[in-house]
Amino acid sequence: MNLREQAQNRRGEQDSQAFVHGGSKAYCAGSPVQPSRPLSSASVNPADRWLAKKLLQHLGHPAMRIKLWDGRTVLPESGQSLGTVHFRDRGALYQTLLNPELKWGDLYSDGRVDVEGDLPGLLDEVYRGLQRGQRWGWLEWLNGALSNRAIKNTLHRAADNIHHHYDIGNDFYRLWLDGAAMQYTCAYYPEPGMELEAAQVAKMRHVCRKLQLKPGEKVVEAGCGWGGFALYMAQNYDVRVSAYNISREQVKYARERVRAEGLADRVEYVLDDYRNVSGDFDVFVSIGMLEHVGPHHYPVLGQVIERGLKPGGRGLIHSIGRNRQRPINAWIERRIFPGAYPPTLREMMSIFESGELSVLDVENLRLHYARTLDAWLQRFEAHTDEVRAMMDERFVRCWRLYLAGSRAAFTAGQLQLFQVLFAKEHDNALPWSRAHVYTDA
Amino acid sequence: MNLREQAQNRRGEQDSQAFVHGGSKAYCAGSPVQPSRPLSSASVNPADRWLAKKLLQHLGHPAMRIKLWDGRTVLPESGQSLGTVHFRDRGALYQTLLNPELKWGDLYSDGRVDVEGDLPGLLDEVYRGLQRGQRWGWLEWLNGALSNRAIKNTLHRAADNIHHHYDIGNDFYRLWLDGAAMQYTCAYYPEPGMELEAAQVAKMRHVCRKLQLKPGEKVVEAGCGWGGFALYMAQNYDVRVSAYNISREQVKYARERVRAEGLADRVEYVLDDYRNVSGDFDVFVSIGMLEHVGPHHYPVLGQVIERGLKPGGRGLIHSIGRNRQRPINAWIERRIFPGAYPPTLREMMSIFESGELSVLDVENLRLHYARTLDAWLQRFEAHTDEVRAMMDERFVRCWRLYLAGSRAAFTAGQLQLFQVLFAKEHDNALPWSRAHVYTDA
Repeated sequence: MNLREQAQNRRGEQDSQAFVHGGSKAYCAGSPVQPSRPLSSASVNPADRWLAKKLLQHLGHPAMRIKLWDGRTVLPESGQSLGTVHFRDRGALYQTLLNPELKWGDLYSDGRVDVEGDLPGLLDEVYRGLQRGQRWGWLEWLNGALSNRAIKNTLHRAADNIHHHYDIGNDFYRLWLDGAAMQYTCAYYPEPGMELEAAQVAKMRHVCRKLQLKPGEKVVEAGCGWGGFALYMAQNYDVRVSAYNISREQVKYARERVRAEGLADRVEYVLDDYRNVSGDFDVFVSIGMLEHVGPHHYPVLGQVIERGLKPGGRGLIHSIGRNRQRPINAWIERRIFPGAYPPTLREMMSIFESGELSVLDVENLRLHYARTLDAWLQRFEAHTDEVRAMMDERFVRCWRLYLAGSRAAFTAGQLQLFQVLFAKEHDNALPWSRAHVYTDA
Repeated sequence: MNLREQAQNRRGEQDSQAFVHGGSKAYCAGSPVQPSRPLSSASVNPADRWLAKKLLQHLGHPAMRIKLWDGRTVLPESGQSLGTVHFRDRGALYQTLLNPELKWGDLYSDGRVDVEGDLPGLLDEVYRGLQRGQRWGWLEWLNGALSNRAIKNTLHRAADNIHHHYDIGNDFYRLWLDGAAMQYTCAYYPEPGMELEAAQVAKMRHVCRKLQLKPGEKVVEAGCGWGGFALYMAQNYDVRVSAYNISREQVKYARERVRAEGLADRVEYVLDDYRNVSGDFDVFVSIGMLEHVGPHHYPVLGQVIERGLKPGGRGLIHSIGRNRQRPINAWIERRIFPGAYPPTLREMMSIFESGELSVLDVENLRLHYARTLDAWLQRFEAHTDEVRAMMDERFVRCWRLYLAGSRAAFTAGQLQLFQVLFAKEHDNALPWSRAHVYTDA
């Protein structure tokens, strides 16, 4: 049995519809959420209030109140407040202090912490506060020690990880992603005021122009999501695409769609890992997969690309990244994206150095991702009743926090979005400049 | 005495005109060149011919003949030849085999090796041959061991290094650089057929557009050459510039020119090291200095930038680079650019990671540098009589080889040219896209 068959067998008998409705349990595990959880009856003592003040201080004095379980509040130094974080019991406050990165998300999802006021605005404020340079000292160290674990995405673990996130159910993602191509990656807004649908089409066009796709070329896409970009390339640039993905739900959706569009002769969706890409190709493209690869595996990715890329070929990798090496937010890694890691440009170089590839162009689209997340969050909030019916309250809170927190991280410069264009290092059939990306032919 | 004064004192009494004519001795040291050196009278034995064949094999069978000192030739495997490399004595062949990277340049400069036919074409052919994957085995190891040395550019050594190369004499550089702005860095050819002058102006404009200079802003330029770019920025973008350089000859030239242009109130040329940049600034720009900084010092450069860059500020570093870490060509480092080192993007990240800076945009202009070097080489060849009169024959041969070899290295993808645009990582006043670089306002 080859690796692809193994992966398919592992998914084999699972009923995808059942999985959708079972998704929330696998997702944000913990005790049942209690939105109407009663307040703790424990009285607030001076130590509790002192710790709440310490928390504000460590967060860099954001414009935020803390409300304790007896209803009394601790005010921010400035007196100004965008909203209130409500700790509903003593444990919630103490757990937040001990391991804020990991615990706060769970406490919020569980309803043991609540936010009154503008959650996205408050998260932006907290990220900005943290950057004003207050250090957590031993808390920071402890937080790091409790949160980090090495990421080793073997073929099996990779499949599990992707299943965890992307197989929640197409119906769920359809509620808040763009209707144009179901793109669950950063959009590109040539005009800042654009609608999400137009910005996702603009992103696909932007990538194709960077890659200078030519009719008849063979494209390999690694990590194709619901297949919208592969379809777009075939429709608009007359190329043949082999699009790889290890999410069974997504591939099923993509295959149905490509048949409906009558393009099944030009786009092939392959339920397999990027490491099993075979044959040669003119173009390699990967949008939003690298975050799930793990830096240990970048040299292999580079070799996969070099092995197949024809002379004169080009490639583009689009990924969330960082300016400096640090682990992914522990809560996101445990509850949302197991195995995920946003690399620095330095780390990404392992792909290109291993593959004897030459980096031609890097673009950082961080603020475009903040805007994309804003659009997703608005749509998500407009559909919370449906999400709650489909999943449960914990799931709604968990995803709200994930979307708003990610938006804050991109806004604050904690996360970057890199598009890296490359070619074989000895090729001279390179784009002469980047003018073609910005001027209509 | 501060560092600037020390550096000035070190140059103090030196007569620049005398230095110009003494330049060639300091430059390509060795025995006097003998262009009419007689052929060796030693007879060629079978071992010599075997070694000559081995050399062609190790070079990946380039289309090149080898002529030995008895006048007999060794033909390439293909039978096709772009020209002939002539070893005029046995020692020249043996030294080339033992340490080709370092020795061949000296042997060529000395006239102990000659090239009949198209030197740039032959060098291109050799670089391409080396990339076909023939390994030198123990020769490669020996070559590396004999060639490498660590680069520690202290303030004093940096001044010596820069003096060695840039203070050869303005009259010499004026013969073959562009007349527009004396730019001794990669030009930008929006249209491939452009003249060098237009392409150097286009390069300056390209950098200014990436940086989005605004009237009244304060710019720090680190490593300003003959000052042409600082002048261009002040003239075209109405900014104030402090331009740093440790080459006394270049600063003298730049100061005279800025006075003649009546812009001395807006452009200040500072004879000092980048490490002594003081005050704050809206824009940091450095074109062709990083190659002389050395990777050990990148964190300091990052801190210098971060210390002075105002909120909302931008920066751009333009540098020769590599795809994978390896030492600079040993001959270039010893004879042409002491202390120089072209970094990988991975190594460059030490600047940005140390300075809490965010990379916004990277562009690789490798083929533009090949074209620039082609233009320089043509002009240089048109002025060899003047260069010979100014310097000597060894100098002419040394520079011909340097320019043609650099052109080959860029053409073959051995060297890259990176422009890296960056900002402080928490700034959100970023350029929204790169369209403004390519569309007229």
